[in-house]
Amino acid sequence: MTASTGAEALLHTLVDGGVTTCFANPGTSEMHFVAALDAVPRMRGVLTLFEGVATGAADGYGRMAGHPAATLLHLGPGLGNGLANLHNARRAGTPVVNVVGDHATFHKPLDAPLESDVDAIAGAVSGWVRRSATPADVGPDTAAAIAAACGPPGQVATLLLPADASWGAGAAPAAVPAAPATQVTADADALESAAKALRGGERCVLLIGGDAPADEAALVAADRIAAATGAVLLAETFPARMVRGAGVPAVGRLGYVPDMAIHQLRGARHLVLVGARSPVTFFGYPATPSDLVPEGCAVHAVVPKGGAAAAALVALADLVLTGPAARVEAPRARAHRPEPPTGPLTVETAAAVVGALLPEGAVVVDEAVTSGIGLPAATAGAPRHDWLTLTGGAIGYGLPAAAGAALACPDRPVWCLQADGSAMYTISALWTHAREGLDVTTLVYSNAAYAILRMELLQVGASLQGDGGGQRARALFDLGTPTLDFVSLARGMGVPAERARTADELASALRRAGSEPGPHLVEAVVPPLVP
Amino acid sequence: MTASTGAEALLHTLVDGGVTTCFANPGTSEMHFVAALDAVPRMRGVLTLFEGVATGAADGYGRMAGHPAATLLHLGPGLGNGLANLHNARRAGTPVVNVVGDHATFHKPLDAPLESDVDAIAGAVSGWVRRSATPADVGPDTAAAIAAACGPPGQVATLLLPADASWGAGAAPAAVPAAPATQVTADADALESAAKALRGGERCVLLIGGDAPADEAALVAADRIAAATGAVLLAETFPARMVRGAGVPAVGRLGYVPDMAIHQLRGARHLVLVGARSPVTFFGYPATPSDLVPEGCAVHAVVPKGGAAAAALVALADLVLTGPAARVEAPRARAHRPEPPTGPLTVETAAAVVGALLPEGAVVVDEAVTSGIGLPAATAGAPRHDWLTLTGGAIGYGLPAAAGAALACPDRPVWCLQADGSAMYTISALWTHAREGLDVTTLVYSNAAYAILRMELLQVGASLQGDGGGQRARALFDLGTPTLDFVSLARGMGVPAERARTADELASALRRAGSEPGPHLVEAVVPPLVP
Repeated sequence: MTASTGAEALLHTLVDGGVTTCFANPGTSEMHFVAALDAVPRMRGVLTLFEGVATGAADGYGRMAGHPAATLLHLGPGLGNGLANLHNARRAGTPVVNVVGDHATFHKPLDAPLESDVDAIAGAVSGWVRRSATPADVGPDTAAAIAAACGPPGQVATLLLPADASWGAGAAPAAVPAAPATQVTADADALESAAKALRGGERCVLLIGGDAPADEAALVAADRIAAATGAVLLAETFPARMVRGAGVPAVGRLGYVPDMAIHQLRGARHLVLVGARSPVTFFGYPATPSDLVPEGCAVHAVVPKGGAAAAALVALADLVLTGPAARVEAPRARAHRPEPPTGPLTVETAAAVVGALLPEGAVVVDEAVTSGIGLPAATAGAPRHDWLTLTGGAIGYGLPAAAGAALACPDRPVWCLQADGSAMYTISALWTHAREGLDVTTLVYSNAAYAILRMELLQVGASLQGDGGGQRARALFDLGTPTLDFVSLARGMGVPAERARTADELASALRRAGSEPGPHLVEAVVPPLVP
Repeated sequence: MTASTGAEALLHTLVDGGVTTCFANPGTSEMHFVAALDAVPRMRGVLTLFEGVATGAADGYGRMAGHPAATLLHLGPGLGNGLANLHNARRAGTPVVNVVGDHATFHKPLDAPLESDVDAIAGAVSGWVRRSATPADVGPDTAAAIAAACGPPGQVATLLLPADASWGAGAAPAAVPAAPATQVTADADALESAAKALRGGERCVLLIGGDAPADEAALVAADRIAAATGAVLLAETFPARMVRGAGVPAVGRLGYVPDMAIHQLRGARHLVLVGARSPVTFFGYPATPSDLVPEGCAVHAVVPKGGAAAAALVALADLVLTGPAARVEAPRARAHRPEPPTGPLTVETAAAVVGALLPEGAVVVDEAVTSGIGLPAATAGAPRHDWLTLTGGAIGYGLPAAAGAALACPDRPVWCLQADGSAMYTISALWTHAREGLDVTTLVYSNAAYAILRMELLQVGASLQGDGGGQRARALFDLGTPTLDFVSLARGMGVPAERARTADELASALRRAGSEPGPHLVEAVVPPLVP
């Protein structure tokens, strides 16, 4: 490879390292990268209209592809706009090569209007950060970023790229280091201790996370352990990716609502953690303990989050399932779909429609929030599919992640199950759905409220003087004045859309969406779960 | 005042300190603030659907009100979403009390899903940051935040509020410290040196910024100096607020395009800075110097940015305008409007329509970017108005700032002149326009391109191999596939909208918008400035 500019070295290093999709929202400092795109046809540049769409798409892409996409962001404010979905990617352990252009090195000290402390912002959300000083650094730094992003564990690796490192000559592509970080595996003692607990006959909970919920063999191993020992098997509350559906062991998730999680863990004498962190509540509350481990319960951490959880479950099953137990089969979810319901549209009937129609091999991006309550049960027997959840709690991940998932899996239908309030954070992702012709069906649950906040208000309510639900407080959770019209919004960005007010209309609309190529949006008008 | 919760102390301290508008996008950690709203009717809580709308609105509010609004953001990701417009507020010197809820102190160490390094993110964009440790701290910390925000100079003051400091008892409101920071004024030597330069007969440029462009007396003083001495008077490229129109001295601005700025400053032997920073290019370029001060030009910094620039200009005029010069009058812009043009809609005819119809007392929020090129000339003789610009270069400020300006000035019409690409970053601000019934007329220049990036590509082009304008590169600046339909987008958020394809249609649409209460959007279909 001949010497080239930093931008060219960046592009060649990325594509040679397997990073062939770049979600971009570029500006002047990234101009040379953009200008070099025509010389590197292996790189697919995907334009987004907002950086949060770029980073959310990179998250969805990385979760499904198993290798990173790149982003291309513009200085500190661009990184700021992308921060929330990088936060989710960080929590998911998604590999992301996060490229942030910065001012030229000679320009940076001048404190020009767009100058900011981009290093501090990057540090807050990245597992790895490096700033290329010269064009010659760009190739090796990019290679190191790819290696860091891939891990294991996967992480957000941020490369800060001064404009002159990008436009300057004397760069060359570099190869990604061959020896990646070693994934943390279970040690023999931890496995033995967990196996002993599981075999001991006391009430056990087996909580799995990390790479396990996406791995059918790991789910089978975990479910066999549960079947043989009576342990309660749960996946972490928000798995990055979970394989589900007919023929796959049906594994429930630890509840988001503290009372539900407390109920699920009640009476446990042993909590075995495989790739999951010790459970805590999502928020701290005045009258609820944050630590969900029941009193007197021993915690057995077999593999930390980010470690080789799937492999550890298989090893754990070998230890636990000896003697007659070795023949225990994992129960698999039987193929079963709800009948498409008729009549009024509610979160329950909407869930049944989804369960009835979810296509074979679908990727489900779930940001349905409170409207999604019936979805797991309704889809457990649907054809095999993958389910992505909001790992970091930073809302606005659904529509962008759906774009990324569709680009990672062009032969699979993507269903984005999306709450209305959170949809608005990154609504311009719909334009990218249309521009790239993605097979994404978005179902927006339009309940005209931040219903989750009404629920949270109840959760904190005991500590309030009065009920806290006065008219002016409630107004801050109300999205109904004026009503958001998602059909207009989608059409305004080139996505065909229709509105469903009954279960039958929802089924018809989803069938139509599935029968046509490209993206669609269906607005399902549902009553809020919490009135 | 009786003891109360931290949230109550926060609210009472804010309203007692003159902060009576809060742009909120709350979550669970801010629930107690929200719940307390009903007890404090003096606080107007304004819901936004995205944090970048809240922070941009606070910027627009602060620029027009002269005192801060508060924000209410949710943890690190919420602050991240609000970062870009806080960056603009920081560059504008806008007073903002930026309240960011955080996890309860006992919950924070548990690294729950939404945990992040919010302190680092806050530090990157705030002039002042404090974290309240206990409920008792909240009152005094809030008072200190208000004082810090107000300055002078105005700044972003971020208060990090753990949920338990908010819900806990034992708090009490506090009074804002009476003695604010002292504004930096010009010292006598600097004034004398500048006056000598101005009187010396060599070519001088007087560059003004900070609080001067918004102050008619300062503009009069500056313009009299220029008239008497032959100095070239310019305002900084992106003033936070500038008073303009018939009867006000017409002051041009230093160009954004480097060649234009170089032309404006060419031959200057003295550059007198009053509230403006020494000029640098917006970006660094391979073949253009970043420092715009011509060689051999002496720089006289009379007052730094953020200092008392308006007062310094009046003092400087007194020093310069002695003898016969004391009678020099400042030329004022005469009342003059372009004829409303007919025929095709272009950036030039659109500017003429704006100049013909801009109402008396308007607040103009200008994020027209390349489509705004003809606006200053076309509006110079329009009725008196204020003009707000994109101070920090972080796009997506226009629609939110318009909301804030309208809330700060309920009796003045707000015109938001908005480019299409940048509109999409914070498009949900339109919903807040509708919800609050704001008198905002938004004119979206729909040129279906990031035209500024096409221009910037030309600017860096000399350093590219080839012209860099290949098809795949250009695709990343193209917004036309699919075309954004802003009429649909606006209607989807409850804002009446129409599309104008001719100059006549634009004039009719703007007249209709002005004749009806509440917000309106007009999409003006214009060819891009750079094809």
